[in-house]
Amino acid sequence: MRQRTVARGIALPHLEEPLDPTKRYRTVRAASEALTAPLSAEDCSIQSMEDASPAKWHLAHTTWFFETLVLETAEPHTSAFEHSFRFLFNSYYDSVGEQYPRPHRGLLSRPSLDEVLDYRRHVDERVLALLAEGLAPEQHAVIELGLHHEQQHQELLLTDVKHALSFNPWRPAYRAAPPAEAARAPTLRWFDFEAGLREIGHAGDDFAFDNECPRHRVFVEAFQLASRPVTNGEYLEFMKDGGYERPDPWLAEGWHRVQREAWKAPLYWEHGDAGWTSLTLSGRHPVDLDAPVCHVSGYEANAFARWAGGRLPTEAEWETAAEDPIDGNFVESGEFQPRPSPDVADRPAALFGDVWEWTASAYTPYPGFRPPTGALGEYNGKFMSSQLVLRGGSCASPASHLRASYRNFFHPHQRWQFSGIRLARDTR
Amino acid sequence: MRQRTVARGIALPHLEEPLDPTKRYRTVRAASEALTAPLSAEDCSIQSMEDASPAKWHLAHTTWFFETLVLETAEPHTSAFEHSFRFLFNSYYDSVGEQYPRPHRGLLSRPSLDEVLDYRRHVDERVLALLAEGLAPEQHAVIELGLHHEQQHQELLLTDVKHALSFNPWRPAYRAAPPAEAARAPTLRWFDFEAGLREIGHAGDDFAFDNECPRHRVFVEAFQLASRPVTNGEYLEFMKDGGYERPDPWLAEGWHRVQREAWKAPLYWEHGDAGWTSLTLSGRHPVDLDAPVCHVSGYEANAFARWAGGRLPTEAEWETAAEDPIDGNFVESGEFQPRPSPDVADRPAALFGDVWEWTASAYTPYPGFRPPTGALGEYNGKFMSSQLVLRGGSCASPASHLRASYRNFFHPHQRWQFSGIRLARDTR
Amino acid sequence: MRQRTVARGIALPHLEEPLDPTKRYRTVRAASEALTAPLSAEDCSIQSMEDASPAKWHLAHTTWFFETLVLETAEPHTSAFEHSFRFLFNSYYDSVGEQYPRPHRGLLSRPSLDEVLDYRRHVDERVLALLAEGLAPEQHAVIELGLHHEQQHQELLLTDVKHALSFNPWRPAYRAAPPAEAARAPTLRWFDFEAGLREIGHAGDDFAFDNECPRHRVFVEAFQLASRPVTNGEYLEFMKDGGYERPDPWLAEGWHRVQREAWKAPLYWEHGDAGWTSLTLSGRHPVDLDAPVCHVSGYEANAFARWAGGRLPTEAEWETAAEDPIDGNFVESGEFQPRPSPDVADRPAALFGDVWEWTASAYTPYPGFRPPTGALGEYNGKFMSSQLVLRGGSCASPASHLRASYRNFFHPHQRWQFSGIRLARDTR
Amino acid sequence: MRQRTVARGIALPHLEEPLDPTKRYRTVRAASEALTAPLSAEDCSIQSMEDASPAKWHLAHTTWFFETLVLETAEPHTSAFEHSFRFLFNSYYDSVGEQYPRPHRGLLSRPSLDEVLDYRRHVDERVLALLAEGLAPEQHAVIELGLHHEQQHQELLLTDVKHALSFNPWRPAYRAAPPAEAARAPTLRWFDFEAGLREIGHAGDDFAFDNECPRHRVFVEAFQLASRPVTNGEYLEFMKDGGYERPDPWLAEGWHRVQREAWKAPLYWEHGDAGWTSLTLSGRHPVDLDAPVCHVSGYEANAFARWAGGRLPTEAEWETAAEDPIDGNFVESGEFQPRPSPDVADRPAALFGDVWEWTASAYTPYPGFRPPTGALGEYNGKFMSSQLVLRGGSCASPASHLRASYRNFFHPHQRWQFSGIRLARDTR
Repeated sequence: MRQRTVARGIALPHLEEPLDPTKRYRTVRAASEALTAPLSAEDCSIQSMEDASPAKWHLAHTTWFFETLVLETAEPHTSAFEHSFRFLFNSYYDSVGEQYPRPHRGLLSRPSLDEVLDYRRHVDERVLALLAEGLAPEQHAVIELGLHHEQQHQELLLTDVKHALSFNPWRPAYRAAPPAEAARAPTLRWFDFEAGLREIGHAGDDFAFDNECPRHRVFVEAFQLASRPVTNGEYLEFMKDGGYERPDPWLAEGWHRVQREAWKAPLYWEHGDAGWTSLTLSGRHPVDLDAPVCHVSGYEANAFARWAGGRLPTEAEWETAAEDPIDGNFVESGEFQPRPSPDVADRPAALFGDVWEWTASAYTPYPGFRPPTGALGEYNGKFMSSQLVLRGGSCASPASHLRASYRNFFHPHQRWQFSGIRLARDTR
Repeated sequence: MRQRTVARGIALPHLEEPLDPTKRYRTVRAASEALTAPLSAEDCSIQSMEDASPAKWHLAHTTWFFETLVLETAEPHTSAFEHSFRFLFNSYYDSVGEQYPRPHRGLLSRPSLDEVLDYRRHVDERVLALLAEGLAPEQHAVIELGLHHEQQHQELLLTDVKHALSFNPWRPAYRAAPPAEAARAPTLRWFDFEAGLREIGHAGDDFAFDNECPRHRVFVEAFQLASRPVTNGEYLEFMKDGGYERPDPWLAEGWHRVQREAWKAPLYWEHGDAGWTSLTLSGRHPVDLDAPVCHVSGYEANAFARWAGGRLPTEAEWETAAEDPIDGNFVESGEFQPRPSPDVADRPAALFGDVWEWTASAYTPYPGFRPPTGALGEYNGKFMSSQLVLRGGSCASPASHLRASYRNFFHPHQRWQFSGIRLARDTR
Repeated sequence: MRQRTVARGIALPHLEEPLDPTKRYRTVRAASEALTAPLSAEDCSIQSMEDASPAKWHLAHTTWFFETLVLETAEPHTSAFEHSFRFLFNSYYDSVGEQYPRPHRGLLSRPSLDEVLDYRRHVDERVLALLAEGLAPEQHAVIELGLHHEQQHQELLLTDVKHALSFNPWRPAYRAAPPAEAARAPTLRWFDFEAGLREIGHAGDDFAFDNECPRHRVFVEAFQLASRPVTNGEYLEFMKDGGYERPDPWLAEGWHRVQREAWKAPLYWEHGDAGWTSLTLSGRHPVDLDAPVCHVSGYEANAFARWAGGRLPTEAEWETAAEDPIDGNFVESGEFQPRPSPDVADRPAALFGDVWEWTASAYTPYPGFRPPTGALGEYNGKFMSSQLVLRGGSCASPASHLRASYRNFFHPHQRWQFSGIRLARDTR
Repeated sequence: MRQRTVARGIALPHLEEPLDPTKRYRTVRAASEALTAPLSAEDCSIQSMEDASPAKWHLAHTTWFFETLVLETAEPHTSAFEHSFRFLFNSYYDSVGEQYPRPHRGLLSRPSLDEVLDYRRHVDERVLALLAEGLAPEQHAVIELGLHHEQQHQELLLTDVKHALSFNPWRPAYRAAPPAEAARAPTLRWFDFEAGLREIGHAGDDFAFDNECPRHRVFVEAFQLASRPVTNGEYLEFMKDGGYERPDPWLAEGWHRVQREAWKAPLYWEHGDAGWTSLTLSGRHPVDLDAPVCHVSGYEANAFARWAGGRLPTEAEWETAAEDPIDGNFVESGEFQPRPSPDVADRPAALFGDVWEWTASAYTPYPGFRPPTGALGEYNGKFMSSQLVLRGGSCASPASHLRASYRNFFHPHQRWQFSGIRLARDTR
């Protein structure tokens, strides 16, 4: 049983923009399969909660996207690879049709992983042939959307696998790796931003999701933003100060959740003889006090911020401070774990990568938002309730997937993403 | 058994501002008891869901507020009316101490209604004595808060009684009354508002809740606002067009709720031989097609707006359009049911009263919001997650309780308040 | 608030058999009302769990029984007291029609307690008039059944009130009374019973429920039966020996329940500075080590018996040992609490009264059992699954209601009845 | 995707008794692996409900039984194949230690199926070596118990796979086979049995489970037993007569279940254009009207019997009628589906095999039952609550596993076993 934590290597292709569409298609699609390389067919089949999906399902669903939304339109007379996939691998597109029940995705032992990989090859050949023939701009746009969609699922695939493997008492490591070299987190400083009318949202012709549009004016009061994300060491201070034992820093719903689910620490933390350890995709390791805290819910982020005398930034504040081009610790580093932030003099560091940063902003439509018609209109707009915006990307996000205007969103109780905390505060 | 729908009369005192504090205290406190006059002790004890509370509990909790937050401070050496009430009638103030479990409030046959009325008299005497002696401004402020708090509970008392009585197959009427005279809803028109930097939130020295502060700048794009709330007749068109049968106008969480709870119409509507009827506090009556639709959730409001080609207004838009002094159909009319809107030429009508208007805005803190310290800091701030703002007040709100800056908040699935729909749309 | 534990007196009429039917009717009906005398209308309205019903509901349902099953047949042209009662107060008789949902019984603030008492008077007058006129034997039989039905509900009324009041932090006492005089439990001895073919079940013309019939043969192996029920002191030994902390004495379902509901002691027990106390209908008192243990589930009874090296008796064994006429501590004693057993030389003591004794027998039909046709066929037969038989009656049972052949039945997890333990063991 | 229903062949070894222990061990162990031959590693990993387990888990748990209960005792100094398996594959033996949570068995992607097969080989080698060396009688007895335990799990493996695959819209067949040749069910007749004192339970030296002991006397009244199980055709009559739409034939708990889970037919039945079809391990086929009805709960069995004017037999009645040697349609036929019963003149046919027959008897200990000490005492005794006894074995039972005294047991709501109905009735 020595093999239980040995992973085959993961070689993730890096994208160097701009790429021609064919090359970009090949690269993104190959990355999904590279991410499943360390996993067995059995690993790829399990589903540990309704929020998560099996890796095999991610591989199939991203392919379904191209087959259903590109090939069905471009080649209406070609029959489907397998008729039932239209139903099995539809996530939530009511306008496409009914969906296999989400909580049962882990029961799909058939199709096998091999059959899903066949499906990928089949669809890839057809899409690549279309790309070779030349396509209308609107078809290119759907392919581009499909690739960004696939990159989202690459991140989910990693977080879902991490969650699923956490139920295995063997604690199998997704990736065999030595712990990263120790680094120290720089002292936290505050950067000042003046009040003023700002523009946020996506501008220009490059790809963006509909929920980043339209670019619009917003008045932002003066504020301060922390120089780096909150570290595990800082979060431990909160815990030692009774953070999980007293209601006062918490939102009411957050405190209710703390009690109902007996939260004592971030997800994946455990306390033992050697102190606090955390489960990573490379196995269980002592918590690195200098690295950004990770796998906290929006409730925990809010409570920590209040305890620390600050607050979470709004998404407009965050976007005011962030600028492309982006740089950071993304999935391509192959570490799958946030690193201590670098020490940068003149602006907030590590806004991109490492951890998604919870904001104080509810996920609502921008003024003038108009979702596209048809199935693509279901992509983002119908989820604009009860969720919070997160910004910046994580150590599991593909670098080419992110932008300053990018809006990720999760419910405030969810913790299985690589989500962390950036503090803001009112200018005094 | 002929008596089952006979209600004793309700005589609600009207407040004419400005009142001296003593008179205002007496008037508000008397109104709570006037609202329970048509109810038996048994009626006042029942709790039909965790969101609602028995009328007796409302009478006691509002008294607890004065005893705990005013008398305990002003007269620290005077013993409590009854020690256990500190626990029994604490709603959610963790800093005051533990709370009797909310879902069990309907099991409190003791204290009896009479004992709770004794409790009220006892606390009233002591508060009135303090008012006669003269109080520090900060004590006056807490009493003022306590009176607004009591007015909130007066509205909840009515909506909770309506909900509780709806479980009784006798369909007892809270109020014996002939249906109101028929009136026609005016044609819906749109009012234009230009883009610009606005100020919203409370200004001045009058009372406001902490969540209305601070007044702050916000940029509002050009928009249009409907001249009146959506009517039952208009909502029926949505229903006839399959509104509850097709997912496309719905937020995903809303559609999930429609299916899980088998929603087919607003709360309290029933379809029978005579068409659609609705339960009111005066019994079951045919749905008045000209009156504002009521008892819809935020999900239904959102879906209707999308179906109608509009959207819900943001709270900044709503406040841009609203101006004090307010006028409308409030609890003092004694009708407890929304009326067809008046026809007003130059501005949106019926912004206040009749129905609370769901906005598109999540209930989040205003820039610079700082809750007070101590127990009063728990009043509003800790509920700023997963809820939506509603504006304007309803036919169950006391008139003197409302303001243009007033922010009410409920979860988007909740329907037992007098909540309705005002449409907005982008300027084309 | 001094009144909170003061009960008006309870004067329960004793039945001295044989009574003429009219006298018996008056006496049983009066007893139900006497039991509610210490309760307010609010007390009579509350329902603390789905298994229990409000006292007001018991008063109404037992009256419904006579109206629906006697008066409707005898006087088909007389209209109902109130038509909706046929639905509201039908417990589970599908052949009579639909039923108001059981979990909502506590929401019925209307009809009021006074109206229910009016209902009782109205039905009583009509039944008494019929009795005066003379009735056919089958009508007499239904009245007799109705009276036994009412006596069952008298016991449930007491156990349901006890459960409901236990949620009130005031711990209101149903009955103001000094604790009973101390008595010592006699040493436990064993009585031997030989193997042989026995007859069990009801014989003769007196009243019995259908589930006690037909009398039939059963082979009973030799066994021993304990001289008295298990005491609180003996049960405490089990607890001190880790009874609730280790799985080995438990049935799997019982152990699951212990863990899921965090059972640490019998229902109503609490541990404080003064040791173990128990809630009684006379308030909270120290656990009497000599009195029979009470409010234990069938799982606890089974686990205790196994721990003690014995087992529960089968119902055939129990009935072999029991003989009419019965004698014991019943509801008429007005104590509502089991007493230490008397010391009897020649036979097992306290088989009747004090506590219902859990048996090892599942509640299944006797060979040849045939339920009556019509509504009365639903009385017992349809509950013959997943329940255990209890024997002997309790301190809350009317004396005239019991027989040696009487079969009570509850699910093995239920604890709110006055249920205790009698040990048996195989003859060695 | 043509492969989706192709199964590799299943070649089940037949046992011809008496076998020497080594041969018997090899044969039984090989049969488990033969049953998983048609399944992929992914198929073997899924768990569709808490009552069921993945096939891989069955393979591992049955091996755990030998390792923990035989090898640990016989070779205390030899280390475990893999230490964590003691926890992972312990089903419910508290005296052995803690158990991996049952609802999460489907999340165990590791160990892989191959690793579990290695585990089996390793344990088999050690057990076979012990058998070659010669063992004490009590060790032989545990091995014998382990083999019967494994045969129980072989049946569960099949029923669990059937349930798991039923969630797959592909409806993959476990076994590719033509439907069996049509046969007609013989007319139902009744056999008379006289009243008398009988002996039931296991006698002699052959293997039996503890719950079949001790053999004891029981008085059985005269009864009649049906000549064969109830057929699908007969069950359809019940359905056509509103069997699932009216409460009168049902036990109250059964009717509650019918409504809550919207039962309309036996498990796996579907109604379509071609009438009723049923899912079998060979795919979906029209319901065979002549074959015994299968996959009915105890509630359905009871309701059918009552509707048909009969009742279910007690286990004593059933055992009175059954005699070894047994004969019937067992797992070795490879059909995995009940067959129309043969026409036998002189005694009830098909008592063994085809379908387990629900009895009216609760699963309780026989008089004098004494479970063994230690872990083996947990095998049967702790499940003796809330379950019913089934008798006779099914088309998924190994022939050598059954006896006339065999007591199977399930909860009355469970339907995923091959469970059917044999009618009894009182002698008139």
